[in-house]
Amino acid sequence: MEDSKVGLTTEILTFVHGLKYEQIPENIQLELKRCLLDGIGVILSGVHSSCSQIIRSFIQENTNRGACSILGTNINVPAALAALANGVAGHAEDFDDTQLSTAPDRIYGLLTHPTTPALAATLAVAEEVNATGKEFLTAFCAGFEVECKIADAINPNHYVKGNHSTGTIGIFAAATGAAKLLGLTEQETANAIGIAASKSAGIRANFGTMTKPYHAGAAAENGVISAKLAQLGYIADPNAMDGPWGFFQVKGGDCDHDRLLGKLGNPYTLEHPGVSVKPYPCGSLSHPSMDALLDLINEHDIKPEEVDNVQLRAGNNILFPLRYTNPQNELEAKFSLQFCLAILLLRRQAGLKEFKDEVVRDPKVCEMMTRIHTYHDQDIESQGSTRMLSIVKVQMNNGETFQKEASTSRGQPDRPMTRAELEDKFISCAEGVLDRSESEKAIQAISEVDKLNNISGIVSKVTIAN
Amino acid sequence: MEDSKVGLTTEILTFVHGLKYEQIPENIQLELKRCLLDGIGVILSGVHSSCSQIIRSFIQENTNRGACSILGTNINVPAALAALANGVAGHAEDFDDTQLSTAPDRIYGLLTHPTTPALAATLAVAEEVNATGKEFLTAFCAGFEVECKIADAINPNHYVKGNHSTGTIGIFAAATGAAKLLGLTEQETANAIGIAASKSAGIRANFGTMTKPYHAGAAAENGVISAKLAQLGYIADPNAMDGPWGFFQVKGGDCDHDRLLGKLGNPYTLEHPGVSVKPYPCGSLSHPSMDALLDLINEHDIKPEEVDNVQLRAGNNILFPLRYTNPQNELEAKFSLQFCLAILLLRRQAGLKEFKDEVVRDPKVCEMMTRIHTYHDQDIESQGSTRMLSIVKVQMNNGETFQKEASTSRGQPDRPMTRAELEDKFISCAEGVLDRSESEKAIQAISEVDKLNNISGIVSKVTIAN
Repeated sequence: MEDSKVGLTTEILTFVHGLKYEQIPENIQLELKRCLLDGIGVILSGVHSSCSQIIRSFIQENTNRGACSILGTNINVPAALAALANGVAGHAEDFDDTQLSTAPDRIYGLLTHPTTPALAATLAVAEEVNATGKEFLTAFCAGFEVECKIADAINPNHYVKGNHSTGTIGIFAAATGAAKLLGLTEQETANAIGIAASKSAGIRANFGTMTKPYHAGAAAENGVISAKLAQLGYIADPNAMDGPWGFFQVKGGDCDHDRLLGKLGNPYTLEHPGVSVKPYPCGSLSHPSMDALLDLINEHDIKPEEVDNVQLRAGNNILFPLRYTNPQNELEAKFSLQFCLAILLLRRQAGLKEFKDEVVRDPKVCEMMTRIHTYHDQDIESQGSTRMLSIVKVQMNNGETFQKEASTSRGQPDRPMTRAELEDKFISCAEGVLDRSESEKAIQAISEVDKLNNISGIVSKVTIAN
Repeated sequence: MEDSKVGLTTEILTFVHGLKYEQIPENIQLELKRCLLDGIGVILSGVHSSCSQIIRSFIQENTNRGACSILGTNINVPAALAALANGVAGHAEDFDDTQLSTAPDRIYGLLTHPTTPALAATLAVAEEVNATGKEFLTAFCAGFEVECKIADAINPNHYVKGNHSTGTIGIFAAATGAAKLLGLTEQETANAIGIAASKSAGIRANFGTMTKPYHAGAAAENGVISAKLAQLGYIADPNAMDGPWGFFQVKGGDCDHDRLLGKLGNPYTLEHPGVSVKPYPCGSLSHPSMDALLDLINEHDIKPEEVDNVQLRAGNNILFPLRYTNPQNELEAKFSLQFCLAILLLRRQAGLKEFKDEVVRDPKVCEMMTRIHTYHDQDIESQGSTRMLSIVKVQMNNGETFQKEASTSRGQPDRPMTRAELEDKFISCAEGVLDRSESEKAIQAISEVDKLNNISGIVSKVTIAN
């Protein structure tokens, strides 16, 4: 057994227990509201997915009514189960935000989707305890930050070897956020963290299936359960993150203590390196290329019938994960450069309405996909696996060519979405649940969450009246 | 990413889906009934533990009534939650059975407690679907066998590095046993296994706390949830055990395919290497030494006041895990040779009544513990870490000495408990719930489980009438 420093659990519980709303810097408060708006929108976008519908059937067969809302519906259930349903919906469309990496070797940071588990858990518990807007935001902030710093500190092998960090680490956002709202003592919070360490789960073998969004929902649910058991007096090891049989060793083989000790809120991950909001409901690695093509289309008013072909050059860091050259359904299309670029040429947008099985199989779309060619570029490859660069070249029928390099996209911290873009995304996500004026009221309420005496002021605007 | 053979999920689902009661050999049927008797008794022994009480409080706050019984109570809840409560109770006293190892390197096999997750899950689902005794036994058998063969096949690093196999692997007993009772199709069963692979959890940092029995309960609960979600159409990867991001790679780093492929029911683990039933509610590594001392006490009618001291010699494989030389409470006493041997000298028994905080702190017991000395024995150590040998020597005040070597104990397959011993254990375990005549009726019903038209014939005898 390897030796290991201790104090990781203590560090986390001290931060969570001590955090007060007044300590959260104003720019972080704004970022939290941005995550809240995007997170609720994305939950609403997933309400009608098959996986969400099955989860709701299961929940309704197994429980009575409770105090907490399943967003987008008129169903109220106990907090843990509302967290489950909202967590699954929030990850169902692959449309939720993404934590960035603090360093080239921290690739997994790039791949944790932090808002969904933190939001699904804290919103449900906030509703149960009638929290104020500020109490909710504080708990959401605490959970979110703990989650991001654990993801930054654990050995990247955690993700590389096959754990799905949104599930395995998201649970700590849920457990600590719920502990905060339930007013747990320090000792109870330590127990909540310890129980969560024993419930952390989710493997990448299930990517591409309904079980991927289930990871996010189960993380939210199990974090709430961990906090509630601790509140009832359930005991775990007070240092369950530490030592040879603790979370970091068992799940990652290691932890970089310097990325956790003294780093919670210092600076907040929301400030550095930031979190990126997805402009398209698909794998984030395709987004820079998509934005570059959309820019070319708009700048040159490119019409689909004028295009001979599109050539995309990139390294294997992009080409390998986005591997469906001939996608057959919506889930494959989310990881297909052929689809993502073809649909932009045809519709100048790639939103929820485009990522549908019937669109993917539309003969016009299939024909256009045959004109999208991807090439492995050795020059780009040689810049290293952490350089997310692609070059998009449009070859027109008339011989003209337009070309653009892409290394970032709208929604990334260096190119944040405008307020209008964020609100448009929310309205589009909520379309199956809210009409435009209802969405606008919800947006307004969310932007003033810190002034609410009761979180129901938001929840009531994103559920359906009985 | 390492390459990996596939077919492990398929192997499991084919066995589970195809198993028929008539195929189960008669000696295995008898062993299953023995596990059932011991398992139900052990569940009843844990009903009044603090962890069980908290779990029941949590369950009752979060659900309505259901069809399935929490044993030892008059509470009925949905199947998954009955599985949770009964699973926690079954592991609460460290009194449930232990899988043996098939080979010296398979140390983890020794440390999985197979009956609790398999029984807690299948009994609850059997009650929900009004299964016959044979249908229940078939599902219990399928889950039990799958669990043991996964534990045998996964790289032992799984346990060594800190996973708690009773939780992490117990979930597959629960998922497949529940799938069998729910009548899932092959495809649905594959989905249940895949969902379970993403819910597998439990780390050893929480040993010595309430969260250890929670692992067994959560495994039972989550296995049932996995099967029920699959029944509702939830999708997972059909080969989630296989490949670089699959269960075996993520959780163990490896799998010995030859210990799984073609090995399910061939032979049954219950036949070879067998499962040992615990005679004492404490760490199994102390049992041989305890039995050896008890034999000496009985053979020579040793009275506590005549004993000067006891010397126990062993290797670190025994001394290291049983590390509490001066235990302060019941949980530490369960892993203390000083307590386990002292209490036998004082009471000639070490049952549920002895493993109590007040007994551990009794001045007479504390005084006797100071006379128990443990020594590391280099000769024993040199025989290898898989040789579980100890030498117990009693030094009498009058100068006489009595000595015995111990390498096995009652309850192990080479020295099975007699029917009378098994029934005595059941009656003692059930004491807080059933009087002697009620226990005898339960024992009778369990021994004829295969003749029951409805599993309620057993359940009704181990619950409390409303």
